[in-house]
Amino acid sequence: MTDIKILLSEDEIPTQWYNVIADMPNPPAPVLGPDGNPVSPDALMAIFPMGIIEQEISSERWIPIPEEVRDIYRQWRPSPLFRARRLEQLLDTPAKIYYKYEGGSPAGSHKPNSAIAQAYYNKQAGAQRLATETGAGQWGSALALAGRMFGLEVLVYMVNISYQQKPFRRSMMETWGATVVASPSDQTESGRKIRKEDPDSDGSLGIAISEAVESAATRDDTNYALGSVLNHVLIHQSIIGLESKKQFEKVADYPDIIYASCGGGSNFAGVAFPFFADKASGKEVRLIAVEPSSCPTLTKGHYAYDFGDTAGLTPLTKMYTLGHDFVPPGIHAGGLRYHGDSALVSQLYKEGLVEAMAVGQLRTFEAGTTFARAEGIIPAPESSHAIASCIDEALACKQSGQAKTLFFNLSGHGHFDMAAYDQYASGQLEDFDYPEESIKSALESLPKVG
Amino acid sequence: MTDIKILLSEDEIPTQWYNVIADMPNPPAPVLGPDGNPVSPDALMAIFPMGIIEQEISSERWIPIPEEVRDIYRQWRPSPLFRARRLEQLLDTPAKIYYKYEGGSPAGSHKPNSAIAQAYYNKQAGAQRLATETGAGQWGSALALAGRMFGLEVLVYMVNISYQQKPFRRSMMETWGATVVASPSDQTESGRKIRKEDPDSDGSLGIAISEAVESAATRDDTNYALGSVLNHVLIHQSIIGLESKKQFEKVADYPDIIYASCGGGSNFAGVAFPFFADKASGKEVRLIAVEPSSCPTLTKGHYAYDFGDTAGLTPLTKMYTLGHDFVPPGIHAGGLRYHGDSALVSQLYKEGLVEAMAVGQLRTFEAGTTFARAEGIIPAPESSHAIASCIDEALACKQSGQAKTLFFNLSGHGHFDMAAYDQYASGQLEDFDYPEESIKSALESLPKVG
Repeated sequence: MTDIKILLSEDEIPTQWYNVIADMPNPPAPVLGPDGNPVSPDALMAIFPMGIIEQEISSERWIPIPEEVRDIYRQWRPSPLFRARRLEQLLDTPAKIYYKYEGGSPAGSHKPNSAIAQAYYNKQAGAQRLATETGAGQWGSALALAGRMFGLEVLVYMVNISYQQKPFRRSMMETWGATVVASPSDQTESGRKIRKEDPDSDGSLGIAISEAVESAATRDDTNYALGSVLNHVLIHQSIIGLESKKQFEKVADYPDIIYASCGGGSNFAGVAFPFFADKASGKEVRLIAVEPSSCPTLTKGHYAYDFGDTAGLTPLTKMYTLGHDFVPPGIHAGGLRYHGDSALVSQLYKEGLVEAMAVGQLRTFEAGTTFARAEGIIPAPESSHAIASCIDEALACKQSGQAKTLFFNLSGHGHFDMAAYDQYASGQLEDFDYPEESIKSALESLPKVG
Repeated sequence: MTDIKILLSEDEIPTQWYNVIADMPNPPAPVLGPDGNPVSPDALMAIFPMGIIEQEISSERWIPIPEEVRDIYRQWRPSPLFRARRLEQLLDTPAKIYYKYEGGSPAGSHKPNSAIAQAYYNKQAGAQRLATETGAGQWGSALALAGRMFGLEVLVYMVNISYQQKPFRRSMMETWGATVVASPSDQTESGRKIRKEDPDSDGSLGIAISEAVESAATRDDTNYALGSVLNHVLIHQSIIGLESKKQFEKVADYPDIIYASCGGGSNFAGVAFPFFADKASGKEVRLIAVEPSSCPTLTKGHYAYDFGDTAGLTPLTKMYTLGHDFVPPGIHAGGLRYHGDSALVSQLYKEGLVEAMAVGQLRTFEAGTTFARAEGIIPAPESSHAIASCIDEALACKQSGQAKTLFFNLSGHGHFDMAAYDQYASGQLEDFDYPEESIKSALESLPKVG
C-alpha cells in the first residue's frame, strides 16, 4: 500500500533557504524613503538586526540556515506532504491532490519558520525584546514561541477584532510568556491617534504594524519583527517549498498548479517560490495566490509605491495595495486582512509570472468544512482560500477528464477558529465584497512619490 | 546530530493490538448483572456490535487490526516519540525524558485510536448511528471524526460543565457532522431525572453515559460507543504502547518509569499495558497512573462492584470507585472526571502490579506551562497530570544524581483548553481535594452485590 504521508527525516531538512530574487527576470524595485530616494540598509538598523538586514537586501540564491535554527525546526519539521486521497474520492475527480501541512508546529501554522529565524538573529545581535503585530494571532503566537526558545521578551500588538474574536490565541501567546495588547492601543502615538478618531476601531494589520514599529523605534532594547511581506520573511518560508520539492521527488510526481492563500505573501511565497526556480528554467507550473474577495490586494489593487503601515512610519514599497488607510471588513481569515502585499510577489504578479484569484468568505468556509469531513484536519480560514480554489479546479478536472496534479499549502489548523465555523454552520457569516468605489479612493490615498 | 523525533514509517504501524488479559496473573473478575450473576455476551448485543463484544471478552494476547482501520490510522500514525531535551535542560536533570505525542490526530488526542475501530465494527454490523458521551470533548470529537470516516451518524451527550467551558469542542464535533447535546438533557429518562433534582447540574461522565446507553438501548438503528474503561477500548489504545516499544528499540533505550494520566484508564492502559507484557516476563519497569486529587478513584476509592453510570443502567464491574453517584468538581481536566476506573487497571492496581498517584489542579497547570515553555507544545490539562509527576521524578533524579529513563504519554494538545490556562495565569483556578467524608458515603452508595 502506498504511503499517504510523504515524510522526510530530520537530516533532510534543507540547510539553505531559497531567495527568489536570484531567479527574477528583473531586479526588485527599490525601497524608498519619504524623500523619494532609495533607503540605505543603515536606516533599518534602528529596528532590525544586521543578520536580517543582510537577508533583506541579498540577491544570493541560497542563504545558509543556522544550525541553531535547524535545531528548533527539528521539533516539528520536516512537515508532512499528504496525498488527499479521501478528498479526491469525495470529489470523484481524476485530479491528484496533494497538500503540505504546516499546522503541526506548536503554534499551529507556518509562521514559526520565520519567527524562529528572526528570534535567532535578534538574539545574536543582543536584542532583549521584540515588538510585533498580529492579525489572526498566528504570527504573534509564532513569535511568542520563538522568543521563548531564545530567551527574548515578546510584545504583541494584536488587531482588535481578532483580540475580541480569538481570546484563546492571546492566552496561547501568554502561556509562552508574551505580553499582548489590543491594537489600536493607548501605548503608542499611532494607536492613540486612531482611537481618538474611532474609539471602537476593529484595528487592522496596518495600524498594528505602526504601533509595533513605533514601539521598537523608541526603545533601544527592542527590535521589530514582521511576520510577512518583507524579503527576509519570504526567504525563511521557502523551507516549505524546498521540502515539498524533495517530497514530490520521492513519489516521482510534480504539481501542475500550486495554490496558496495570500495576505502579505509569506505563505504563498514560501510554498511557491522554490517551484518558481524551476519555472524560471522553463518548467511548466502555475503558481496561484488566493486572496479574500473582501481584501483583494492583487486582483483589484493598484501597483504603486505605498506605506506598509497605516501611520506611514515604514519606508515606501512598490506593491499591489488597496491604500495604506484601507481597513478591511472583519472577516475571519484575519491573517489575510492586509492592504498591501509583498514587493516580490507583487512584481512577479505584475510581470505575469504568478497568478492571483479572490474567493468569498462563505465559499472558503464551505470548502474548509468539505476538507475537514474528507481529510479530518480542520483548516484555518486562511488556508481554506487555497482549498476552495483547489477544489474548484479538481471539479473542473472532473468535467474535462484531465488528471492534473494539484497542490496547496495547508498553512495552519483551525482550532482557534471554531467560533467562525460555528457562525458559518448557523448561517451567521456574510460575504463582503470589496466596494468598487474604494478603488478610486485607494488611488487618491497613495503617497506622491516614485 | 541525534534525531529528537523518533519516527516510524506507515508500514511499521502494528498489525495487531495487545490484550493485557493474556499476561495478567489472575483472570478478570466477572462482570455481573443486577441479579448478581455474570452477564452473558448476548446481553450486550442491544448496544454493541458482535465484533466489539468478542474483543470485550477475549483473552487472546493479540487481536488483528483490520486493514480498513490501519488505513485511517495512517492519516496521522505512527505518532512521534520525542526526546524532551529542552525540558531536561530546563530542569537540569540527569534523567532522560521521553514523551509519545498523540495530539497530532485530527481530533487532537489519543481517542481516535479506539473511535476509528469502534466505528468500523459498527459499520460492519450495519449500525447507522452511534450514541456516546463526552467529558472534555476529546472522545466526542474522536467519535464524530470516526463516524464521518465510515458514514455513520453520531449523537454526543456532552457533560454540561464542558459544554459551557469548551464551546469550540462542540463546534469541532458539529463541523464533522455530529449532533451534540448538553447532558443532563431532556431527551432521556436518565437526564430528565437528574434535571428535576438539579436543573443547573454540571453533569458528569456517569450521567452522560446513562443518557447515551439509554438512547442506544431504545433505538434499533443506534449502538453505543464508550471512549474508555471497557476492555475493547484498552485493546485499541494499546497501539500507543506498541509503537512506543518499537521507537525505544530504535534508540536502544527502555523506560524505567512510565507515567500516564488516568480517568477511565484508556490512556494509561494504552501506553503502559504493552510494557506490562515485559514486566510480566520479569523486566523491571514501573507503570504509574496519575489522577486528579479531586477525583482520586484509584488512590482513595473502594475496590468493589459498582455501576459504570449514574443511573445504574450498565452491568456491575469490579473496580475502584468513588460511588456511581459521585459528581466530581468542575476541574478543567474534564476527561479525568469519572467516578470509576477500568476493571483491568483496577485489578492490576489492587494486585500491586501498577501504581497510582494523585495531583492537584494547580500543580498540573504549573507543569503544563513549564512543559509548553520548554517543548513548545501546549498540553491538554489531562496530559499535564502525567507531566507533573514526571517532572517531580526528574527533579528527584537531580537530587539523587540518578539518570533514570522517564517516559510519559502526551495524550493531547491544549488548544481547546486555553480558557483554563488563562484562568490559571490570572490566579483564578482552585485546587479541589476529595473530601474525606465522601469516602464513607461512597461505600454506602455501593450496590449490594458480588
